[in-house]
Amino acid sequence: MLLEKIKSPADIKNMTAEQLRLLAAEIRGGILKRDSTIGGHVGPNLGFVEATIALHYVFNMPEDRIVFDVSHQVYPHKMLTGRAYGFIDSRRMAEVSGYSSPAESPEYDCFEIGHTSTSVALATGLQKARDILGGKENVVAVIGDGSLSGGEAFEGLDVAAELGTNIIIVVNDNEMSIAENHGGIYRNLQLLRQTGGKAELNLFKAMGFEYKYVEQGNDIAALIEAFKEVRDTPRPVVVHLHTEKGHGWQPAVDNKEKWHWNSPFDIETGAPKSEGGGESAAQILGGWLREEMRRDPKLVSISAAVPASIGFGPEERRQAGAQYVDVGIAEEAAVAMASGMARRGAHPVFSTYATFLQRTYDQMAQDLCVNGNPAVINVLGASVYGMNDFTHICFFDIPMLSHIPNLVYLAPTTVEEMIAMEKWAIGQDKYSVALRVPEGEVSHSTEEYDTDYSVLNRYKVVRRGKGVALIGLGNFLAKAERVADMLKESGLDATVINPRYISGVDEELLESLKADHSLVVTLEDGCVDGGFGERISRFYGSSDMKTMNFGVAKALYDRYDVRQLLLDNRLTDGQVVEDILGVMGR
Amino acid sequence: MLLEKIKSPADIKNMTAEQLRLLAAEIRGGILKRDSTIGGHVGPNLGFVEATIALHYVFNMPEDRIVFDVSHQVYPHKMLTGRAYGFIDSRRMAEVSGYSSPAESPEYDCFEIGHTSTSVALATGLQKARDILGGKENVVAVIGDGSLSGGEAFEGLDVAAELGTNIIIVVNDNEMSIAENHGGIYRNLQLLRQTGGKAELNLFKAMGFEYKYVEQGNDIAALIEAFKEVRDTPRPVVVHLHTEKGHGWQPAVDNKEKWHWNSPFDIETGAPKSEGGGESAAQILGGWLREEMRRDPKLVSISAAVPASIGFGPEERRQAGAQYVDVGIAEEAAVAMASGMARRGAHPVFSTYATFLQRTYDQMAQDLCVNGNPAVINVLGASVYGMNDFTHICFFDIPMLSHIPNLVYLAPTTVEEMIAMEKWAIGQDKYSVALRVPEGEVSHSTEEYDTDYSVLNRYKVVRRGKGVALIGLGNFLAKAERVADMLKESGLDATVINPRYISGVDEELLESLKADHSLVVTLEDGCVDGGFGERISRFYGSSDMKTMNFGVAKALYDRYDVRQLLLDNRLTDGQVVEDILGVMGR
Repeated sequence: MLLEKIKSPADIKNMTAEQLRLLAAEIRGGILKRDSTIGGHVGPNLGFVEATIALHYVFNMPEDRIVFDVSHQVYPHKMLTGRAYGFIDSRRMAEVSGYSSPAESPEYDCFEIGHTSTSVALATGLQKARDILGGKENVVAVIGDGSLSGGEAFEGLDVAAELGTNIIIVVNDNEMSIAENHGGIYRNLQLLRQTGGKAELNLFKAMGFEYKYVEQGNDIAALIEAFKEVRDTPRPVVVHLHTEKGHGWQPAVDNKEKWHWNSPFDIETGAPKSEGGGESAAQILGGWLREEMRRDPKLVSISAAVPASIGFGPEERRQAGAQYVDVGIAEEAAVAMASGMARRGAHPVFSTYATFLQRTYDQMAQDLCVNGNPAVINVLGASVYGMNDFTHICFFDIPMLSHIPNLVYLAPTTVEEMIAMEKWAIGQDKYSVALRVPEGEVSHSTEEYDTDYSVLNRYKVVRRGKGVALIGLGNFLAKAERVADMLKESGLDATVINPRYISGVDEELLESLKADHSLVVTLEDGCVDGGFGERISRFYGSSDMKTMNFGVAKALYDRYDVRQLLLDNRLTDGQVVEDILGVMGR
Repeated sequence: MLLEKIKSPADIKNMTAEQLRLLAAEIRGGILKRDSTIGGHVGPNLGFVEATIALHYVFNMPEDRIVFDVSHQVYPHKMLTGRAYGFIDSRRMAEVSGYSSPAESPEYDCFEIGHTSTSVALATGLQKARDILGGKENVVAVIGDGSLSGGEAFEGLDVAAELGTNIIIVVNDNEMSIAENHGGIYRNLQLLRQTGGKAELNLFKAMGFEYKYVEQGNDIAALIEAFKEVRDTPRPVVVHLHTEKGHGWQPAVDNKEKWHWNSPFDIETGAPKSEGGGESAAQILGGWLREEMRRDPKLVSISAAVPASIGFGPEERRQAGAQYVDVGIAEEAAVAMASGMARRGAHPVFSTYATFLQRTYDQMAQDLCVNGNPAVINVLGASVYGMNDFTHICFFDIPMLSHIPNLVYLAPTTVEEMIAMEKWAIGQDKYSVALRVPEGEVSHSTEEYDTDYSVLNRYKVVRRGKGVALIGLGNFLAKAERVADMLKESGLDATVINPRYISGVDEELLESLKADHSLVVTLEDGCVDGGFGERISRFYGSSDMKTMNFGVAKALYDRYDVRQLLLDNRLTDGQVVEDILGVMGR
């Protein structure tokens, strides 16, 4: 096996064309072996095998620098830079992450990257620093056509072109985003493909780049030739590659959206190895939204390139018709658009993962909340039970969102409460509302939930006791109830509260607890630093009431084990009980 | 006076060309009267007088919608929509804000807008909602050439083009941003101007727009003709106007950067009416950076179109040469670039206002802090003494930044401490550092400040007392010291602490206070909700220590009076003393 002998990219420099072709097949095998075993990005990696080989053949890492956007295509690079074991040895796959990571390879990975549209802007830093420090290396930024729709990509291109020195932007155009592409620029990419790069109308040239088109984006020889031509260019240049997403493995070629990312599967048939995760609140919410659309013609569901997150597959999108919009990877535009639609009387709902909503802090604050337009933002994955990759942690949403003035941020505890809140949020016209969609095991309830949430910050007492009050936010109300049950065994009859509103304090209720409680405990499924609980501690700070805030410590986390995370943060039911009893002197 | 008789845009529909010309002169007079009296945006408003008249002449607001990007050119629109009194009557100027504001005019102002690059994305919401609801109105988005460099503008254009229905993007190309433009796209705008819009290479066409060029962007007749041609267009179209910033008033034409915005001035000479605000910490910091550049060739100062904020005028920029970069209005790229430069061994420092840093939450978290690259971010204006317009409030920085994992956020209390911290931050290679530049009256000190801040979260005891400890963050350390002096009169010998680190807790010091203190008070010059103090309250929550967190309540604020704001939030020295004595039972 060639791959086993490659310790660094230098080892491929003297390979023959035939060896490179064999190497490509081995890399492809590594991608499929890893993805079929532990899951991961399939199509984008398969499509970029040849380009990666050619890049490393022509450029000299680590002196030359290559920045891989969003890391969806980074597996081949990892295999050529000393980490093939993470792909061909099923016992060692966990040692290698699915993303570009200097922590893993300081020499060959330039940045920790998992969010889209950042590679060019990051690379401009390498470009400018090289120029200031008198370096001579090539700076290469790889970016997919899908990622081009993100504003940061455009900003980066604009800056790179103006700097005017060596930078090579490799546009990996596989004619797809995660799903299909959306945006005006894609017609230009299409025109460029159709004309073999010869069309006068050229987005990249208009931005100030030299431009080179490679139709055979999965042909190593053509790629090597193209990269050799731009190596050591004194000017910013775009190399536009036409690649095939999923290249070399038919299932991924035939269904590009399904095979963008996949959980473990049978490598022969493509069939999933397990049944899937059962029901999820996000999928239920999406289903409800699609039903509601039929009742409410003003309702529009907005996606920023992750339609599957709430179950909008190709067929669901077709059925939704004009009531569904995908803005591409452009979360900022999604929030602004939602605000504009609400202003004009439509009922917009934008759904995305908490980690990607970070890209819209200012749009949330300014475009939406300063205006108070009644759009609805569904915040997905916001929980310790959500995605656990370094760059995809979703549980910093409460510090981020709950202090933005004029935003009502709600935390439903069950599917039924979620639907009640969503329905209210869509129907009302007073508030900008965000909703923290439950994550992890789905909770149901036959409880009658309120249908009107317009009187803000009214917490709900679920169980009235005394001595200790437990405020369990969203996903963690169930934990509060379990803790209350366990406290009974120690003779404590705890009050349990569902706060419902993340973004405000029920001062009246908190005040009333002073009469017969000495400790108020908050439990939140997220970062405790800047979170929900601290506000409660502030409220009681100058009184005799004691408080405890349970949540996850502010820190970087990477591929954590949830059980261990809970243990480390003293968040298991038993630990919470133990700590409460300690403070209560029991 | 024509202007006094205009109650709505309908009143200009039947005016003759000569009347429109007179109206333009009166509007220009209104701009200058207001700006010379209370300050405001000068050049951008002067340059857009004719275009605004033509827009209102051709389109029918409020049915048709016009969205004004960043509001720097919105004065003429305000004068034509019932608010001329805010410009021609010096007693009523305070009644009208300098920004687009539905709170002020629900009919004619579509959105509260003060941040750049948002108009197109917001307008796509009006466009899409109109299409869903079966409306027929025109949607117009006005955007300046400078604002085009912001990623959200690009995202909006990309979406607008794909929607494919009526939307008219009016590009107000005055060949300037706040200072000169920066970015690859500006060469394309230049080419389009030079060819009268005829060049094949056309950024807007490449994005999918129809395109129309108007060379005489300050000629009402030419503008009316152009707008008439695109009115009721079934397709997205860009109307590219070549305007003159400052048109009609020579000082603003001659020095476009100086007259972008100005404080009150003599209308005859352009001379400032007052001496200016005296020294500011931000200006001192900029001066120090320029000196430091000569000692440190790796140091690069990055600006996102607000170079004057730290005193980089045209001459200072020229002197800094390659050690100064302006990325245009592209804060996201600025943060990513800083991260990339730090990765490659340069010493990048990016300075911008806290309100604009909101546009980089994800870049701060992902591009910078997840990577831990040692770039320095100077956060300007973060104080109740900073900008006070609705969309420019800078005191939400602590909730925003201090909970981002792996960011060290520092709060110097004096100019000398600021320089010590900045110098350390630039020289070290371990941490991503943000520095909260003091705002308001400048404090100096002869104290010897630490030169090394690499052992994180060590608070500094300024004065050792007992009973009450006052933690005064940044700007508010001085307040803590005054409060301590006043408490002496009541027999309390308060401890005073300079925490220095906003982003972490000195657990050892806080623990030690338990020995002889019963109350810990935090004072912060910013939003208390999600702020610095709440973390202290959490720390002490389960102990006998009482806490009080002083700061500004989470809310929307508009053109507040600082004294009133402090009073309303019980933040005057006297109020703080009173509340402390209340809790101490004195």
